[in-house]
Order: sequence, then C-alpha cells, then structure tokens
Amino acid sequence: MTSAMPGRPNPPPPLAFSMGEPAGVGPELALKIYAGAAGTLPTFFAVAPPDWMAHVAKGLALPAKAVPISAPEEAEEAFRHGLPVLPPPESFGTAPVFGKPDASNARAVLSSIEESVRLIQAGRAAALVTGPIQKESLLEAGFPHPGHTEFLAELAGPGQQSVMMLANSSLRVVPVTVHIPLAEVPRRLTSSLLDSTARITHRALMRDFGLTAPRLWIAGLNPHAGEGGKMGREEIEVMMPVIEGLRADGIDVAGPVAADTMFRDSARERYDVALCAYHDQALIPVKTIDFHATVNVTLGLPFVRTSPDHGTALDIAGTGKANARSLTESLRLAARMAESRRAEAA
Amino acid sequence: MTSAMPGRPNPPPPLAFSMGEPAGVGPELALKIYAGAAGTLPTFFAVAPPDWMAHVAKGLALPAKAVPISAPEEAEEAFRHGLPVLPPPESFGTAPVFGKPDASNARAVLSSIEESVRLIQAGRAAALVTGPIQKESLLEAGFPHPGHTEFLAELAGPGQQSVMMLANSSLRVVPVTVHIPLAEVPRRLTSSLLDSTARITHRALMRDFGLTAPRLWIAGLNPHAGEGGKMGREEIEVMMPVIEGLRADGIDVAGPVAADTMFRDSARERYDVALCAYHDQALIPVKTIDFHATVNVTLGLPFVRTSPDHGTALDIAGTGKANARSLTESLRLAARMAESRRAEAA
Repeated sequence: MTSAMPGRPNPPPPLAFSMGEPAGVGPELALKIYAGAAGTLPTFFAVAPPDWMAHVAKGLALPAKAVPISAPEEAEEAFRHGLPVLPPPESFGTAPVFGKPDASNARAVLSSIEESVRLIQAGRAAALVTGPIQKESLLEAGFPHPGHTEFLAELAGPGQQSVMMLANSSLRVVPVTVHIPLAEVPRRLTSSLLDSTARITHRALMRDFGLTAPRLWIAGLNPHAGEGGKMGREEIEVMMPVIEGLRADGIDVAGPVAADTMFRDSARERYDVALCAYHDQALIPVKTIDFHATVNVTLGLPFVRTSPDHGTALDIAGTGKANARSLTESLRLAARMAESRRAEAA
Repeated sequence: MTSAMPGRPNPPPPLAFSMGEPAGVGPELALKIYAGAAGTLPTFFAVAPPDWMAHVAKGLALPAKAVPISAPEEAEEAFRHGLPVLPPPESFGTAPVFGKPDASNARAVLSSIEESVRLIQAGRAAALVTGPIQKESLLEAGFPHPGHTEFLAELAGPGQQSVMMLANSSLRVVPVTVHIPLAEVPRRLTSSLLDSTARITHRALMRDFGLTAPRLWIAGLNPHAGEGGKMGREEIEVMMPVIEGLRADGIDVAGPVAADTMFRDSARERYDVALCAYHDQALIPVKTIDFHATVNVTLGLPFVRTSPDHGTALDIAGTGKANARSLTESLRLAARMAESRRAEAA
C-alpha cells in the first residue's frame, strides 16, 4: 500500500480497467490509448491475462508493451514503462481468437470484473472502467444477469438502483426506461421510477460531478410534451406530480419539456442533465452531437463506473481500427468522478 | 403575364408568401428578411393586407417598406423597392394586435393561403411559403382541419397524401407518424403507411430535389432496431416486408437502422433522407443539428410548399427579436424545389 509522504498528499489509487471480451476491441483499445496518450491520462491498469495483452500488443505492432504487475500498488511505477496488467483470478479456458468469443473464456471475463470491484471496495483502485463484454457468450456460460450493469449492481450489494447516464462535453442524458420495446414505454414509465431516477441522478451530479445545485430538465414522453394533454396525458398524470415533489425538496427541475427543441445548443446551456423517457430520446441527441467521445456512466453504485459507449466491435477486433476516443474519455471521466467523490468524503 | 423574350429564358414566377397569423411573427420576418438579404433571395411577395404590412414595417423601423401590388406579375419590379404585398380577397375583421390573435381575422388569414394556392395553380406564382398560423383562433372561427398542411392538401384536390419533411443543410428527416401520443405509435405505424410515405418521399427527392437515385434509410421503432426481435418485433413484422417491397421496385433503401447511431455525421453522408417512426425520433436530430435553419417541407402536394419550422411566437411578435433563418431558408429551398420541378417538367 502507498503511504502518505510528509507534506505530500496521498496520490489517488490507479483506475482498474476490466478487459471485457478478449476477442473484441477492449484489450487493444487499452494498449492503443496507452501508446497514444499515456502522459495525459490518469494511471490505470488492465485486469487481464498478461500473455494475451502481450500478444495483442505484438500483433498490432503498437509502441506500448504490457507490463505484468502483481498488485495495483505497482501500477504507478509500471505505468512509466507500459500498460500495467494484473492477471484476473481465473484464466482462459481457450486461447482467444479475434472476432470469435468463446464461452469457455466467460469465467476469465467475469473474474476480471469481480477482481476489479474487489480492489475498489478495498480502496486499492479508484474507480472501474469496463471494457465491452459479449453478453451472448456469457449467457451461454450461465451468466444470470441481463447485462453488465446489473451484474455490477449485484457485486455492489443488495438494494441498489443503478441509473445509466451518457455524457460528453456538451450534454448529459439519462434514459429513464432503457432496453425495452417502445410499445412498453408508456406503461413502464411510472412516477416512482421517474422519481427515484431523478433523485439518484441529482445526488450523483453533486457527489461525482461536483455540482452544488444540479439543474435537471425532464423531457416529455409525447410530441410537444403532450401540448397540455392534447397529445397524451402522461405528462400531466405521471410526470408533473413527480416534478412537483422534486421541487418541494429543493431540486432545481424543469419540465416536462418538448424533447425536440431541448437539445439545441442554446437550450443545453440551461441544464446539467436531461432525463428522457426512453432509450432513443436520450441516445439520439447525445450520439448525434458527439458520437465518438460519449461515455456511459453508471450512477447509483457505491463506486464510480464508466465505460465506452460501444460494443465489442468483433468485425474489426485485432485490426487496430477501433476508435479509442470513448475509452479515453471514460478513463478521464472516471478519474475526475473518483476525485470529486474523494473530495466530498474528505 | 410575363412573356418570353427572344433568346432569353422565361424567368420563374415569384414565390408567394402567405402571411399566416397577423398578430404573430410572420409579417415582420418577411420584412426583416427583405431588409437584410433581398439581393441574395428569390423574388417573393407577401399575400397580406398592405396597410398592416406598412404598419409592421414602421413599428419595427426596418429599412424595408411594403410595396402594394395588384398582381404577382408586378412583384419582380416592386421587389427592387421593397417587399411586394398583394392584398388577399378578404380583409381583417379587426385591426390586429401583436400577440393577440383574433378569430375575426381568421377569414383574412385563410384567404391569404387560398389566394396563394390559386396563383400557383394558375402558374402565376412558383411555390408557396407559408407563415405560421395560430390554429386555435382558426378553429374558433370554424376552420375544420387539424392543421395547415391538411388544409393545403384539401385545396390541392382529393386523394392527396401529404408527407412532412424537415430539412437543413446536413439532414432530411420524415416522421412517418406525426402528431399523435407516443402510446399510439406502434399501432399507427402500419406497413401501408410506411410504404406510401417512403414512395412519396422517394418521388419527391427525385422531382423536387433533383436526385437521380435517392438513398432512403428507415429507422427502427425500438432501441437498437429491436435487436433481432429481442426488444420488439415491429421491425421484423411491419418494416422488413415494406423494405423488401421497395427494394423489389428498385428503390435504394436500408433498414431498419438503429436510430441512436444513424444521425452521426459519418452516417448522415450515406443517405439522402431518414424515415423515422415517430415525431421526436425525427425532430430531435434535425433540430439538435441546426435549430434555426431547419425548414418544414410538405411533400406529395401538386405544388411546392415550405414553411419555417417554428410557430407564431406570440410572446415576441412585434419586437423584431424573432430569428429569420428558418423563413430565409424556406424561401431559398422553395425556389430551388420549384426550379427542379420546372426542369423535370421541361
């Protein structure tokens, strides 16, 4: 463990990067980022089998080597020489092949995530940045969770409601409902879900983003936010009572706002986060504005977690073509969020 | 009527601008645009009571006067001196007051639109650019149509399906369903509606936009376009059969495409129009990309019609603050579309 030097503040622990699907672009992106921008990045280490990371680096002829470490405390020194790589507790069942996920490697993938979380919970890593996983091959191996975030919520402990936020330098959005058919949105968008999502988001913007009085805008479900009930009544019946309750508790919230006009630049300046009724209402504007630099942030967990807003990109894995912006921004944002949380706790 | 001079092509007739709600920003925007950019604009004339237009110009102290004309054929000469203004067949019931629409002026508003359409049908105006109307005060006066566009479709003749398109310099979108509650979208998005909308759009891109082989992308209804049926089956059951039918007829169409990623700049280059399942899916990206320069285009009518993509803005009418970009672009686009249609007909 690092210990404080007299007159010098404790450095923050390094960030943990869980490799995700080894046959996808996660491992190469970590190496690519190290090669391109190590000097401007917070220290991070990959939780991945070192042999595979060395193989990926060699195949891509990247000016970055994998430096095996045996504990996160070695990451800072190792980071001067290459990407620090900490082996996960369980190794591969089969040597990975780019583009071909194999269910026999599922335990290695999951143990990389589990180990990262354990290290954060022990205060030995500052935050979690996750590489993209291939859900299908995990499900095949008996993974019982609908997705990455639900798995993390379980590792975090019982009773957690996690909230997905997408963020880039000009917009933060939270979809209140996420991966469900559009036809189910009106039924699933309840007052209670909207209320808890807004409160988790509000708290996270204070704790993890350092905002003292976060401004929330809530998008209407219907065109023109229902136009006073003429095109749908959810705004009046489901959303307004929640907004009034939030205001009564001193939260700065506006809405329901017509979704089509609220993402123009002059409107974006007026809020810190947009809560949206469903997936595309949130993801269309944030990805239209900045596709490559958007980061996926999980709010509501006891630890900071970010991830790149893309999948495993199996079709280009191993080619070096994958765009590293989203993972780069994920690392930067995770470090800022962890620092904000440390400052608040201090 | 103008007649062809030997060796000189017939100039196109002027554009007709129907004033819309006189208490709103339509009249002042026409004057503002004339004052700011007459030299770069196609000739247009307002169909409006000349006294009111002169009053508006005087109140705003604009360097543009209203020049009364008695026929569209006088517009070109008058346009050198000011904004040509042709009185509509019916005049005001009450002197308009900024910000206070009055149902007794509904007949003047409607007759401005009717007269504009008559002039286009007679070949004496090239296209229609409509100023924003205040639907409520027209309904109060017995206007039986759900909106501006439906009224125009009726003036155009029986059996017209009109299609709404929003366009700016980097994106064209068509919402297949428009002003209905979100909960009704899955039921109202039928194969037959999608098919006819796609065909009208395709035809219009050839005739009015001069594209020889328009490329259509169709957005999925559900997140990730349903992910192969896992998050909704409308893509498979409703949309795919339409897409196959369009392709069989030689139309270049792709989809259903995940809506959240299709509006990033590198994707936008790959299609000429995005057909979207519902209002916000279409309007969020186009207004996020360029809020002020977006134009509303009505496809499928026997004449060209554009309009600014904003309402009457009663709260700022008469102050000169209203942004004129959308009406400016509406005039420019209408002229280009009319020219393309003339060229095709020649």
